[in-house]
Amino acid sequence: MLMPSEITAEAPSNIALIKYWGAEDLGAVVPCNPSLSMTLDRCRSVCSASFFEGDRRPDEILLERDGALAPAPESFSRRIAAHLVRLRTAWNRQGTLRIATRNTFPAEAGIASSASGFTALTLAVSRALGIELAPAELSNWSRRSGSGSASRSAFGGYVQWPAPGTADAASAAPVADAEHWPLCDLVAIVSSSSKEVSSLEGHQRAATSPYFRRRLELVPGRLDTVREAIAGRDFARLADAVDEEAIDLHLIMMSSRPPIFYWRPATVAVLAEVRRLRREGLAVCATMDAGPNVHVLCEPQCAADAEAALRRVEGVEEVLADRTGTGPVWRQGAEL
Amino acid sequence: MLMPSEITAEAPSNIALIKYWGAEDLGAVVPCNPSLSMTLDRCRSVCSASFFEGDRRPDEILLERDGALAPAPESFSRRIAAHLVRLRTAWNRQGTLRIATRNTFPAEAGIASSASGFTALTLAVSRALGIELAPAELSNWSRRSGSGSASRSAFGGYVQWPAPGTADAASAAPVADAEHWPLCDLVAIVSSSSKEVSSLEGHQRAATSPYFRRRLELVPGRLDTVREAIAGRDFARLADAVDEEAIDLHLIMMSSRPPIFYWRPATVAVLAEVRRLRREGLAVCATMDAGPNVHVLCEPQCAADAEAALRRVEGVEEVLADRTGTGPVWRQGAEL
Repeated sequence: MLMPSEITAEAPSNIALIKYWGAEDLGAVVPCNPSLSMTLDRCRSVCSASFFEGDRRPDEILLERDGALAPAPESFSRRIAAHLVRLRTAWNRQGTLRIATRNTFPAEAGIASSASGFTALTLAVSRALGIELAPAELSNWSRRSGSGSASRSAFGGYVQWPAPGTADAASAAPVADAEHWPLCDLVAIVSSSSKEVSSLEGHQRAATSPYFRRRLELVPGRLDTVREAIAGRDFARLADAVDEEAIDLHLIMMSSRPPIFYWRPATVAVLAEVRRLRREGLAVCATMDAGPNVHVLCEPQCAADAEAALRRVEGVEEVLADRTGTGPVWRQGAEL
Repeated sequence: MLMPSEITAEAPSNIALIKYWGAEDLGAVVPCNPSLSMTLDRCRSVCSASFFEGDRRPDEILLERDGALAPAPESFSRRIAAHLVRLRTAWNRQGTLRIATRNTFPAEAGIASSASGFTALTLAVSRALGIELAPAELSNWSRRSGSGSASRSAFGGYVQWPAPGTADAASAAPVADAEHWPLCDLVAIVSSSSKEVSSLEGHQRAATSPYFRRRLELVPGRLDTVREAIAGRDFARLADAVDEEAIDLHLIMMSSRPPIFYWRPATVAVLAEVRRLRREGLAVCATMDAGPNVHVLCEPQCAADAEAALRRVEGVEEVLADRTGTGPVWRQGAEL
């Protein structure tokens, strides 16, 4: 038997400034609108993949929790297993995979770990299978895991996943790198329990909101504003667009049929505190993904004051301080 | 000198099930959409008006607070004074008015007191001036105070203020009386401080929401649903429409430019508790006006359980238990 090919990959999470919400084809992960995100630095997924060529044992999927590796829960394994089948079939390689994965940030803290997780998985597996993917190909394959946001975790800095129907919509592409404009992302954790409604379910319900079509008309202009704000490092301009976009996303959720309510009491308290800090002159703004936690973006010189203020908000369990980060990396060896 | 003509009138507040939000002409109080409300029973305004015919002293405007009458604050007096000028001019009567008013519910508790207040004022003043108004005329004159919702406080039970442009849009009209379907309204007070953005300002900003036009398309169908639910005493049907309408109103506010955020942390907690109670089988639903407090409508047999549950929600300062009520009344004499 050959020695296994062993790779460890790390991929960053990302926070969407313009949100992917609603799919034209959920199976093929074709979104209804373009999206744009900032890659994170500290919130990363680490994935080791070992490929045993020609082996016929079943794949092994392990997840680190509380410092120990254990077989991943059924619901988690199923999506990973489907992606492994997809990759191995596409590249026509027979053999067994051992996958071990962990997140550098609290699990189930309401921060999208599927984007970083599926990008790290795709990168580790491709390298273990001997496939060398260009970043755009990594983006495309990661996206096809079912996590559209994973398309954006293939790059550092600021990343756009174009509108469907455009020639390059299969994968995301960088807009600016991390050094162009380092910002901080203070993630105010107000609930670390699992969401009642999954993002996949939310994407399915999006078009049932009577306001969804109108939202799609608004996104391109807001996306342009965000791009211009990033190009010019204009925080006030970015903040207005990011605040609006985050509220819009949750308006669509709350007006879907049946409605989706992610906000907790402390979500509202954090949003009010961010508005207060802005009125006081701090360069801060707020965005939320499909969950109750609030990502508070700010310029680095405001981060200490903003973090202290957020920690004082009743109901905030924790504040994760992150910042603009670089793209995925990989190295030889199974570290997990 | 003649003896003054003295009248005391009482008028009910009302809670809108379909909301008046956005005006085609704010000065003339012409709304963008039809609205429909339930008249309340215990939340009432009491107004005594004394008319001193031919007298040339300035009008006196008194407000009861903490059990004592005192000159009303400037901002409050100004709107009342303008309405007194309007009424006296229309009916061509010269003389001085002494106005004294109080609410039977906590002042500034976030329950619209302008609807009940202006209807009680209009009724008391008209009678003190010797004018006998039919209910539709009372509705029309009360509305012209600047509080559109006052048009609906001229009647008991369930009351519709028709769409603008229709022949009868100047005044509201009853849809069903209180005995047809007695419901409870448990008002969960989460904040009794004054609103940061007035309803008048909110009406002005409504059309700046990119979703406002779409909302106007949705209202007629939802209004029909509410009317049918009332006609058939179908609480489940009423609840779905009322829940949707309340969320829609706040979506429009939160997407106005600049946005208006009325929700407090406990607003979200109460909304979540109402959804939980509904899932458990209680006939409850929630609506909110332009403020943070939540009106929890329910069938009378659910009221005790719902009230107990609401009192347990963190951040709920008080629960005012009200129910479907009758229209305004008046009597001789100045009681205040």
